[in-house]
Amino acid sequence: MPNIKLVIEYDGSAFHGWQTQPGEVRTIQGELHRVLETVLREKIKVVQASGRTDAGVHAKAQVVAFKVEEQPDLLRLTHSVSSLFKGELSVVSAEIVPDSFHPIRDAERKQYSYRILNRAAPAVLKKGQVWHISEPLNVELMNREAKSLIGVHDFTSFMAAGCEALSTVKEIFESEVVRDGDIVIYRVVGKGFLKQMVRIIVGTLVDISRARIVGHTMREIVELKDRKAAGITAPAHGLSLDFVLYR
Amino acid sequence: MPNIKLVIEYDGSAFHGWQTQPGEVRTIQGELHRVLETVLREKIKVVQASGRTDAGVHAKAQVVAFKVEEQPDLLRLTHSVSSLFKGELSVVSAEIVPDSFHPIRDAERKQYSYRILNRAAPAVLKKGQVWHISEPLNVELMNREAKSLIGVHDFTSFMAAGCEALSTVKEIFESEVVRDGDIVIYRVVGKGFLKQMVRIIVGTLVDISRARIVGHTMREIVELKDRKAAGITAPAHGLSLDFVLYR
Repeated sequence: MPNIKLVIEYDGSAFHGWQTQPGEVRTIQGELHRVLETVLREKIKVVQASGRTDAGVHAKAQVVAFKVEEQPDLLRLTHSVSSLFKGELSVVSAEIVPDSFHPIRDAERKQYSYRILNRAAPAVLKKGQVWHISEPLNVELMNREAKSLIGVHDFTSFMAAGCEALSTVKEIFESEVVRDGDIVIYRVVGKGFLKQMVRIIVGTLVDISRARIVGHTMREIVELKDRKAAGITAPAHGLSLDFVLYR
Repeated sequence: MPNIKLVIEYDGSAFHGWQTQPGEVRTIQGELHRVLETVLREKIKVVQASGRTDAGVHAKAQVVAFKVEEQPDLLRLTHSVSSLFKGELSVVSAEIVPDSFHPIRDAERKQYSYRILNRAAPAVLKKGQVWHISEPLNVELMNREAKSLIGVHDFTSFMAAGCEALSTVKEIFESEVVRDGDIVIYRVVGKGFLKQMVRIIVGTLVDISRARIVGHTMREIVELKDRKAAGITAPAHGLSLDFVLYR
């Protein structure tokens, strides 16, 4: 059975997250499954992604894979799927991969970025893709604190309830905060993340900058292994999965 | 009478262009006039912009000005106007300017940028703000042709019917095409532009790259002084007014 890998872009606001849910809830996994079966005219067992994205989270290049009976025309598949999603999801590329390829297990690096619009005026052209914070943020402080997360740590303090991860220990390869005009961007690279981990990191960095958390550095919050020590969970719509690298 | 200058951002897709029109048509000038009168509780004569934008064209930083009887609280004005526009228009800044300030006459430099999404997959996250072209564009050729427009020229070939400009001669200070990943950006700086001039320049650059125009360079098309010598008019939604500089 040919194993197909797709790179997809989606607008998180159009779906209730990645994972298929019972009932009428419109999820990316559910809709993609349905559309692929329509286009390919065959039953597909399961469409797997490099990882779930929460409701509202965007993806520039999520990686998914599924098995089919017969090798399809990839160009036709790409166009048909994008066209049926009417601008809510697009297939950026499609390829046949070895049977052994698994989008979660084989992922080596994932980059997420979180965008904050940091100015008095609310968002217009970036609306739905940024978290609006009027109060000027201390990007230098946030970047210093963000960088202190690089390495292997137990991220229990930055994990939402209901996380199904086998281990709370994760390795962070890159973690930085930069300013691009009135946009403040948090960029993080890791092999995998706990539930809402990136959003809680961003919320905590913002709370440190706004002095709503005082007396604790990010590293101290990590060491406390307590969700209550960290800050708020930043809203989903500022977050985007940028890319997934495979070995 | 205090003269107020606002810098505003707007989503062109929400309006039928800048200029007030008779009837029910929702324009930026018309809506801003109405909202300002509501917020300030006084009649305003006219709200003038640095220039009109066509229906669908966005602005990151359009400059407008209007006169009022009494000096308003600028912070309150800014917040109230943005809030009434619910994410379709935002006031980025507000200030009192000398009585003599005129947003069109005093504009020294205006930058527009035009964005093309140049990949097979249709737009998702940049939807409504890019022109989607699947065919790979020759950015090097387009940039060379774009740069040849720098200087003082008669832009009759790049002017839409119905233009009310006093002269078809315009000076271009900067004109370039660059690639940023799968986005191809045309950036142009001038003192003023003819009707749909930037969109016709972009359409012509694309037509040259796609070999739909052959045997003529941009400079030769300029010299022909004939709209028919130039290419198509690129769609409005890829265009954005980036900033206006004043002396």
